[in-house]
Amino acid sequence: MVKVAIVGARGYTGKELLKILLAHPRADVTCLTARMEGSSKKIAEIFPSLLGQTDLECRDFDVQEVAQKSDMVFLALPHRTSLRFVPELLEMGKRVIDLSADFRFDNIDTYERWYGPEHTPQSESLLREAVYGLPELYKERIKDARLVANPGCYPTGVILGLAPILEEGLASDQNIIVDSKSGISGAGRAPEPQTHYPECNENIKAYNIVSHRHMPEMAQELAKLAQGPIKVSFVPHLVPMNRGILNTMYLSLPKGVNQAEILKLYRDFYRDEPFVRVLEGDLLPETKNVAGSNYCDVAIRVDGEAGMAIVVSALDNLVKGASGQAVQNMNIMCGFDETAGLNFFGI
Amino acid sequence: MVKVAIVGARGYTGKELLKILLAHPRADVTCLTARMEGSSKKIAEIFPSLLGQTDLECRDFDVQEVAQKSDMVFLALPHRTSLRFVPELLEMGKRVIDLSADFRFDNIDTYERWYGPEHTPQSESLLREAVYGLPELYKERIKDARLVANPGCYPTGVILGLAPILEEGLASDQNIIVDSKSGISGAGRAPEPQTHYPECNENIKAYNIVSHRHMPEMAQELAKLAQGPIKVSFVPHLVPMNRGILNTMYLSLPKGVNQAEILKLYRDFYRDEPFVRVLEGDLLPETKNVAGSNYCDVAIRVDGEAGMAIVVSALDNLVKGASGQAVQNMNIMCGFDETAGLNFFGI
Amino acid sequence: MVKVAIVGARGYTGKELLKILLAHPRADVTCLTARMEGSSKKIAEIFPSLLGQTDLECRDFDVQEVAQKSDMVFLALPHRTSLRFVPELLEMGKRVIDLSADFRFDNIDTYERWYGPEHTPQSESLLREAVYGLPELYKERIKDARLVANPGCYPTGVILGLAPILEEGLASDQNIIVDSKSGISGAGRAPEPQTHYPECNENIKAYNIVSHRHMPEMAQELAKLAQGPIKVSFVPHLVPMNRGILNTMYLSLPKGVNQAEILKLYRDFYRDEPFVRVLEGDLLPETKNVAGSNYCDVAIRVDGEAGMAIVVSALDNLVKGASGQAVQNMNIMCGFDETAGLNFFGI
Amino acid sequence: MVKVAIVGARGYTGKELLKILLAHPRADVTCLTARMEGSSKKIAEIFPSLLGQTDLECRDFDVQEVAQKSDMVFLALPHRTSLRFVPELLEMGKRVIDLSADFRFDNIDTYERWYGPEHTPQSESLLREAVYGLPELYKERIKDARLVANPGCYPTGVILGLAPILEEGLASDQNIIVDSKSGISGAGRAPEPQTHYPECNENIKAYNIVSHRHMPEMAQELAKLAQGPIKVSFVPHLVPMNRGILNTMYLSLPKGVNQAEILKLYRDFYRDEPFVRVLEGDLLPETKNVAGSNYCDVAIRVDGEAGMAIVVSALDNLVKGASGQAVQNMNIMCGFDETAGLNFFGI
Repeated sequence: MVKVAIVGARGYTGKELLKILLAHPRADVTCLTARMEGSSKKIAEIFPSLLGQTDLECRDFDVQEVAQKSDMVFLALPHRTSLRFVPELLEMGKRVIDLSADFRFDNIDTYERWYGPEHTPQSESLLREAVYGLPELYKERIKDARLVANPGCYPTGVILGLAPILEEGLASDQNIIVDSKSGISGAGRAPEPQTHYPECNENIKAYNIVSHRHMPEMAQELAKLAQGPIKVSFVPHLVPMNRGILNTMYLSLPKGVNQAEILKLYRDFYRDEPFVRVLEGDLLPETKNVAGSNYCDVAIRVDGEAGMAIVVSALDNLVKGASGQAVQNMNIMCGFDETAGLNFFGI
Repeated sequence: MVKVAIVGARGYTGKELLKILLAHPRADVTCLTARMEGSSKKIAEIFPSLLGQTDLECRDFDVQEVAQKSDMVFLALPHRTSLRFVPELLEMGKRVIDLSADFRFDNIDTYERWYGPEHTPQSESLLREAVYGLPELYKERIKDARLVANPGCYPTGVILGLAPILEEGLASDQNIIVDSKSGISGAGRAPEPQTHYPECNENIKAYNIVSHRHMPEMAQELAKLAQGPIKVSFVPHLVPMNRGILNTMYLSLPKGVNQAEILKLYRDFYRDEPFVRVLEGDLLPETKNVAGSNYCDVAIRVDGEAGMAIVVSALDNLVKGASGQAVQNMNIMCGFDETAGLNFFGI
Repeated sequence: MVKVAIVGARGYTGKELLKILLAHPRADVTCLTARMEGSSKKIAEIFPSLLGQTDLECRDFDVQEVAQKSDMVFLALPHRTSLRFVPELLEMGKRVIDLSADFRFDNIDTYERWYGPEHTPQSESLLREAVYGLPELYKERIKDARLVANPGCYPTGVILGLAPILEEGLASDQNIIVDSKSGISGAGRAPEPQTHYPECNENIKAYNIVSHRHMPEMAQELAKLAQGPIKVSFVPHLVPMNRGILNTMYLSLPKGVNQAEILKLYRDFYRDEPFVRVLEGDLLPETKNVAGSNYCDVAIRVDGEAGMAIVVSALDNLVKGASGQAVQNMNIMCGFDETAGLNFFGI
Repeated sequence: MVKVAIVGARGYTGKELLKILLAHPRADVTCLTARMEGSSKKIAEIFPSLLGQTDLECRDFDVQEVAQKSDMVFLALPHRTSLRFVPELLEMGKRVIDLSADFRFDNIDTYERWYGPEHTPQSESLLREAVYGLPELYKERIKDARLVANPGCYPTGVILGLAPILEEGLASDQNIIVDSKSGISGAGRAPEPQTHYPECNENIKAYNIVSHRHMPEMAQELAKLAQGPIKVSFVPHLVPMNRGILNTMYLSLPKGVNQAEILKLYRDFYRDEPFVRVLEGDLLPETKNVAGSNYCDVAIRVDGEAGMAIVVSALDNLVKGASGQAVQNMNIMCGFDETAGLNFFGI
């Protein structure tokens, strides 16, 4: 049993982590923190769906207390906040899975351009050590990592959707179009005008056109796969549903490449991956088929006439796009079965 | 043409007023105000659905400016705010339709118990003069009113649903159960945790059980109809949709009263009312049939075995439940056709 | 391990049974049937959310095959269909949990009035033997039952919401009002005009006012609890969401009974029941807190002024209202922990 | 006043036509038909939202009766059905606005490839005469047309979104990516498994990837604008909402073209068009801002780094995407103000 702490337990990703870890056969949740302003409260009073499942209390964050009670720390904090605590936690011998963007970038300049000049010398020195926590690409490095940077929800589905084709060298040096559609829980738990029910119900809109912070994250990972620069034109959209992301991706293909070859490429690439399902035949990903599960579903269609591959991927933004993937990383780090505690099918 | 001002134009009821009045054949919107903190802005920039329809600007409220530019003032302000401005507007010879609760109660004690000790001597003296703006009950008094207190969204549908049966003396001195279901726009335009999309989507809940402020408003009007005290057990619910209220009402019937008699009662009562539709045969009210319109649909079922009448009513909380009814009141006050500018069918 | 068959695996309750049983530590799903018109198909091709979780095939129903492969048979068939197969299955020594209404009534006349004259002499003779599968009331009888009649979705929440107060004798010989609100999955998986997306989205409506077939089922069980006749005025409503039922119930209370006493009554009644949560303080049931779980949440409010108790209950119609409860019954019948395989929290 | 008939009045586009035309200052609806199997019924009994607005009856289609009662005929029939009746209606001197695809194609081969070999010699001979009813492109020809082929819902928004840039010659001979998101009413009023509420609520999916029948329709019109072949990679998606289409379009730009130039191009192109709004500044189209109106909102973003223009357009599929546009065509054909009866703002 590994003793785990969840820092930032009041948000949607914190709650999802808790739900998964409470039922996990090898994890023991020992510590929950959130901004409680000096008080403490049973987490089941904050999230009544948990009544009868746990008596755990949520308290203000105290790095000493967290370190004392746990061996594995999940940080579900806002961007720019995690980096303050990670160096100390690692120093005290804890392993950290950070769900923020603070350690996702290899390059400090990219981070600073998109998130601001927040890193300290200590935290910056960890950028190189941190492992990008996409198990399907970095499993070996995750095993021994002290610090895992859990990927963003959009990048997870986009990278998994494009990896086989990029790694095969079929798309280097080109522009890839990523049109993504996300449910509203991706915007977090704080009420804002754009997440006010009557404003987003019965509505779909694009936002942050080619200016979303997940774009450089995708570009970094896709470039590594392609072993060359990749330009991503990323347009996210908000869809009136709670959970799920559907990514529709468009990229040029070399002449003569056909559907069957591409499908075989994907099948082979994900043969041993328990959480990526390559759909066959007429099947296409739908967010309802992955909602509540740790799966990412992927399908490919070759548009021969246009010389283009269209890839569709779907995942649950709070599970494979955040908390489920974080637990998958924990399983790998701890030598557990990769699917331990994640073998649920969703809604 | 009557010159009208909308005070509180940034909320949902203010916007709905504006949409109706811009298309109204006898009204000229001359003035829009809201809390603008010193600036002014085109209303179509605040509500882009209005682009191309109006160049009107929204400014901070100034009672002199409003009085100078308009003859009829719609106040779409929070409760406890309207009462501050009404005396002065009336003094300057304006007619006022107030969409807040500030002048709905005959009895200052009831108001103070539910809304607080806010009235000044001047505003309190107007309580008696103000006419409760439910045209189906008070048309004659509305004609000459200087001050109309526009009813609440829940009370409108409940009173219209029960009026014929109470006026007939079939339900005096008894307890009536009102189980109401409202879309989320009824909670207003300010984002709150309970109106955050992921919290209210895929969810239904009761709230303010027998403690909602619309309960005493219903009770006041129902008692007048019944010419005796009426106890209302009112339970509102929040339903995941934008617009609409459905009220399901339960009350005991004297022995031997049957469906046909009650139906005839309703038909007669609403014979000349253009906005109340008494449904016949198998038809039952559905909010989608009234959404976007000024109709209130009503149906009755007599449960002979239980000696009970079940009445169902439906309306659009922003139209017949607020802004449409306010314009209906304006039409009556100005001697226009009661349906002028309201002859649309909704979505 | 118990070998289980699911007959009617293509409907929503069949799918939910399968999801729960695939993850159940003591059950082995050995047989799936549905109307396949001579063919067979992997269930994961019918429900792609199950891809990667099971290779089970779905075939046409054959009573011999089902009996041979399984010891426990779940019938998720339309009403009036189950009764044809139950006698033979029991004769072959199988235990049966029937999710239809066919064996829920003690009295053949009530069944025939609401469902039609379908019973054969053999099936009718089993009406007396069948146990109404509400574990919180009939746990002892369920243990040894050969045939369990799994309750309807509405009756489950209504009976659990009212049982403590009725059993205490506080409401005999009276009329109880039950105003229920259900998500659309309760209408089943067959497309119909009233479940067509644009017809039920952005809409709420009442249907089958005091004529729904779950009304006599509630009345039967409530009368047993009250040890006297109970009249239920039941009005169900359709709400635009997938899952969940919220019941708001109104009944008169004897004078002087207060909130604290009633709350204590409920707490005591459900002290040892793992799946009924009596909410305390300000908490009220919301369907989102039980969706995807086997919980039924209950809260009580006493309206002293009206001499009335208002009880609110919430459950997931496909879990505690159908398939989860069926597995709970299986656990009891097999001597497993009552919560085995049901210890999930939902969405 | 023009006397109009609506053939196919029971579908969503038929109903929307009726709502618009009943309030139209220059139109008189004289005839409604649908498949009634020999009976007739008041349309307000079919669509209760129309109660109190019209006593019109809906009958079986009879071409003689339609011709006798009306001068302008709207055909809201399934594809492959309209073509049977158009020749005879024209022969009798009627003018026809056909909402199906039957007369949208210049080239019979394209029609037959996508819709089948349905045309008769008489109907085929009308393909050349029929005018593609997109007023922003073909206003002059529409004025005198006997037969207008009303555009598809997806093509309307896509063509309006791309026309200025293609006409300017900035995108000839290239591949354009069109990623569209539609509400469910676009699938029509007949219940199907894929429009069953629980199947499409809380879900988004792509369908008919590069095989949707609106793709050749877009390609035909875009090629005319570009004066050269255009390849469209069209991927439609189903979004859980009733109304609205959002199109996100991606195309390469010649080097050095910037946002300001493109914006000016659009502004100039649509300067005199009352129903296309080119959004400025930070504004982006949202379906809620056009729902219930005849507007198409368009915005452009130049992605300089990728050398790409991203165009977003939004419209209501039942209004500007079907029935509103049909009435706009009627206005032009009859010499009315183009906006007559269409000057509403939606929800």
